[in-house]
Amino acid sequence: MAGTPVTVIGMGLMGRALAAAFVAAGHPTTIWNRTPGKAQALVEAGASEAPTVDAAIAAAPLVVICVRDYDAVRELLAPAEAALSGRVLVNLTSGASDEARAMATWAAGLGAEYLDGAIMMTPPGIGAPDTAILYGGSPSLYETHEKTLSVLGGGTTLVSSDVGLPSLYDVALLGIMWSTFNGFMHAAALMDSEKIAATDFVPMATDWLKGVASFLTAYAPQIDAGSYAAEDATLETQVPPVRHLIHESRIRGIDATLAEYTEKLITEAVGRGHALDSYARIIDHFRAPSA
Amino acid sequence: MAGTPVTVIGMGLMGRALAAAFVAAGHPTTIWNRTPGKAQALVEAGASEAPTVDAAIAAAPLVVICVRDYDAVRELLAPAEAALSGRVLVNLTSGASDEARAMATWAAGLGAEYLDGAIMMTPPGIGAPDTAILYGGSPSLYETHEKTLSVLGGGTTLVSSDVGLPSLYDVALLGIMWSTFNGFMHAAALMDSEKIAATDFVPMATDWLKGVASFLTAYAPQIDAGSYAAEDATLETQVPPVRHLIHESRIRGIDATLAEYTEKLITEAVGRGHALDSYARIIDHFRAPSA
Repeated sequence: MAGTPVTVIGMGLMGRALAAAFVAAGHPTTIWNRTPGKAQALVEAGASEAPTVDAAIAAAPLVVICVRDYDAVRELLAPAEAALSGRVLVNLTSGASDEARAMATWAAGLGAEYLDGAIMMTPPGIGAPDTAILYGGSPSLYETHEKTLSVLGGGTTLVSSDVGLPSLYDVALLGIMWSTFNGFMHAAALMDSEKIAATDFVPMATDWLKGVASFLTAYAPQIDAGSYAAEDATLETQVPPVRHLIHESRIRGIDATLAEYTEKLITEAVGRGHALDSYARIIDHFRAPSA
Repeated sequence: MAGTPVTVIGMGLMGRALAAAFVAAGHPTTIWNRTPGKAQALVEAGASEAPTVDAAIAAAPLVVICVRDYDAVRELLAPAEAALSGRVLVNLTSGASDEARAMATWAAGLGAEYLDGAIMMTPPGIGAPDTAILYGGSPSLYETHEKTLSVLGGGTTLVSSDVGLPSLYDVALLGIMWSTFNGFMHAAALMDSEKIAATDFVPMATDWLKGVASFLTAYAPQIDAGSYAAEDATLETQVPPVRHLIHESRIRGIDATLAEYTEKLITEAVGRGHALDSYARIIDHFRAPSA
């Protein structure tokens, strides 16, 4: 049984992965790229390459676009504005929440419906059952197309009716990733200074992250309640170890910026009278406007 | 069957938890604290409070100490140096690697054997099967006492014959924890700016951390090999999203320091010609001496 026809615009690494997942799931799939001929394997697998962006959009009710940035979306679709009327535009391009909101307004002005999505996975993971793609937009519009969109990732979810929120979730989660990566690189360099291999250290580090995750789960209700009673480690008990981390880094010539930042956050909170609170109290720093 | 007699010095929150685990496991347990009478519940449970630090050390071949810092260890044990001869001193106080190495030399000078340990858990977790306590010191000495020490945590491990290394593992792992915490606080503040509760966000964040851990597992062999071919996300593709994170933070008045630091690390690596490498390449920054 053939699925809903779909169009995929943009044949970069991610766009090709998206189109391949649709083809594999039996959806009649039309593709288009500014520079044609970039997706020969997809055409061989059954996708149709449209000669123009207009023709690509005319070929299917659901138009998925994933390109470099939101400016590129506007630029590519500009010659085809009339064709978008009555279409559902699903924008999986990475961007910012304000860009997504502006694009929804622009699409509405053309008579198109709009969903914005953030792909929380690299191209090889497209189509996998645990791949998360976060959507924002009208719940009924999402529901209509949920089954088709789930072809791209089993973890497809509507996070909000606000089209701006997938972009925010995207960067918020990436921020957690980069912070964790940076903390690990710092740790791996400390280990390396004592000839301990990263492959020997990483099982301990990843096991440790499970405990870290359980602390976050305990902190979340404290953050929501604005009540930070430490059930285990108080902020003041974390001052000596963070200073040890700074010391260990400096004597080895390793960048201590991350530890210095943590020390600043902790001592600021202690200085405001929160010595006996849990680490969840640090949310105050991020909630307050920065200088 | 009674186990090996043990002495625990220092009746802070952690010292009391250590002594309680020994008592619960049937080890004849002697306790001592500078200010006496702080552990009445332990005495009621069967521990003996020694009148002097000398008497405490004389009471058992294995002497566990866990106090505020290494200076406090020296200060408390100074009047009892002669008593330490022939004892095994197990120092679970938090400190730095150079302090631990100096203390091992000091203990050897007194005729004591020495193990240094780092407790990777808060006091309520002492005695639990998954609580990790990392040791450094002579493997044969560790082996002799492993069973007794495992009473304090099922995850008891000798990480090195170097007594300095538990302290280094300790702060390296704490550094990963703080970095992850800070990344989460930043993310939670972004969510909060859109009225999304931390309790609603945290399941997604902790699930995401599992994927982050799997990336670290993939990066470790790259770090050891000094070969950083990106199998998925290249460094250059991470520049636009980190700039979006900075943008989302600034327009909401949220401290963007973490994202700015990540942007600096990525753009530095890209500038050195590593645009197509994986994030593992960032180890270069931490390995290089900081300014």
